[in-house]
Amino acid sequence: MLPVVAVDLGGTNIRAALFPSDQPKPAHSQRALTRAEEGPEAVVRRVIESIEALHPESDSGLRMGIAAPGPLDPAQGIVFGAPNLPGWDRVPLRDQLASHFGCPVALGNDCNLAALAEWRHGAGQGVHHLVYLAIGTGIGGGAIVNGQLLLGAHGLAAEFGHMLVDPSAPICGCGQPGHLESLASGPAIGRRFAELQAERSPAGIPADGYSASQVGKAAAEGDRLALQVIEDAGTIIGKHLASLVHAFDPERIVLGGGVSQLGEMILGPIRRAFASALMHPAYRDRVTIATAALGDDAGLIGAMLLAREP
Amino acid sequence: MLPVVAVDLGGTNIRAALFPSDQPKPAHSQRALTRAEEGPEAVVRRVIESIEALHPESDSGLRMGIAAPGPLDPAQGIVFGAPNLPGWDRVPLRDQLASHFGCPVALGNDCNLAALAEWRHGAGQGVHHLVYLAIGTGIGGGAIVNGQLLLGAHGLAAEFGHMLVDPSAPICGCGQPGHLESLASGPAIGRRFAELQAERSPAGIPADGYSASQVGKAAAEGDRLALQVIEDAGTIIGKHLASLVHAFDPERIVLGGGVSQLGEMILGPIRRAFASALMHPAYRDRVTIATAALGDDAGLIGAMLLAREP
Repeated sequence: MLPVVAVDLGGTNIRAALFPSDQPKPAHSQRALTRAEEGPEAVVRRVIESIEALHPESDSGLRMGIAAPGPLDPAQGIVFGAPNLPGWDRVPLRDQLASHFGCPVALGNDCNLAALAEWRHGAGQGVHHLVYLAIGTGIGGGAIVNGQLLLGAHGLAAEFGHMLVDPSAPICGCGQPGHLESLASGPAIGRRFAELQAERSPAGIPADGYSASQVGKAAAEGDRLALQVIEDAGTIIGKHLASLVHAFDPERIVLGGGVSQLGEMILGPIRRAFASALMHPAYRDRVTIATAALGDDAGLIGAMLLAREP
Repeated sequence: MLPVVAVDLGGTNIRAALFPSDQPKPAHSQRALTRAEEGPEAVVRRVIESIEALHPESDSGLRMGIAAPGPLDPAQGIVFGAPNLPGWDRVPLRDQLASHFGCPVALGNDCNLAALAEWRHGAGQGVHHLVYLAIGTGIGGGAIVNGQLLLGAHGLAAEFGHMLVDPSAPICGCGQPGHLESLASGPAIGRRFAELQAERSPAGIPADGYSASQVGKAAAEGDRLALQVIEDAGTIIGKHLASLVHAFDPERIVLGGGVSQLGEMILGPIRRAFASALMHPAYRDRVTIATAALGDDAGLIGAMLLAREP
């Protein structure tokens, strides 16, 4: 089987790995800081350096798969721009890499590709219909419909964090009000805890606010306010998952991203809200919620799978 | 081409038609009152009588397609029950008809089948990705994903009226709070107008409330309150369509159902709210909103198409 180079371009890290087969085990892997603030040219140069550090032999029928934050156009190979990639505006990343390395390159949305990876090699194996939600700095999604990755007409589908759930919710990172992401992402959880903490004891709030894992730590130590904030986030996530089940009727939901790693303190409220928000018993018992199995590697493995598609 | 009998079982009417080909032109058609209040046995008997009135020759390789309100299980041929079909609880409609007529029968969700019909013969022709919303007594949906009707794992997908859009919205017909249907269906529009009218001039409200078309008539005659109610419904529909575009990335949205026939007074607010709620310019200009072309025949034509599927 021909080798594939996969890259996961994130706002913090660029990860690259050489996969000798379609199994999720890289022969070599490589991590570099993105330093997104230096702009697209510098970041694309670092992507190239990361790939070169793997010493792939470009005359061996090599293929490359790149996972990048959406929205992007997989058919044209263009990254439209993302909040955590400042300065990116319609960057033709696919063709830049293809012309540099002289090999075929495929580009995909990182969350879509994570869904593909979890379906083939992770917590979504064995089903034909899957909904994936990645709850982290943002909330992204992916779906398998009838055994195929859902891309939509232009590769812009499955933005499940950017759907209206509550018109009174804060403005989302995308600029629209009321989206799930503005209520239940990691930063949303930290922000909400800081707001409530400010009412309780204004002196104790760190200058750079709280992360979701700090709120989780406080909750684990018995802070009822922290626990409430996490429960509220879990509840709205669970309700939204019910909406997604009404829309997609999947056999399995897979939850990834750092926030889902808070464990039962958020998974419990998610499951309870989900079960009670389903519109009809016909849905219940026919769909299971699982946590992602591939961790941070999901995007990278999905990029490898994308590159191997015919 | 072998003939197909199609039936559209609604809460008010049972419609049946004999289609000699896959074109949307029936050779004969037939309409009877459902009289749903008499319960499933009487209704199934009337479905059978409606079919018999078409004089189909059952020894000629006849097939039948039935559109019924969801949720239902198309694989098992079972209607789980619907608010406008009182007393229906897991009725094996497909097998009842198949054993009576001795021919293959296919069962599908009426809105899913309307989407299929609009895609093949109506306002959705020529695209591979379509979202259909039927705004009437309830709000139902259908979708074409990658050139295939979206059914989900159990035939329960595309319930786009039953997705959370506002936790403060009234309880929906399905029993859950906050769904689009509770804010923008025909009865929701009539109810909201009655509430506001009660504040303005309590004496003038008819005992059985208002229908959406009465509200539309009042709006057309210059009643600002009526116009506002319709604009509000259009606005939340438009915002939800943006969410559906973020989820499905279709090329076209088709709007059916009686409420969409209110014309520009609701389509204008829908389009405006939709355009301003899209999360990124990449979506804009790549999706068009059209009104359904097949009218009340969409479910019937969809049932005919379903029966012809291999």
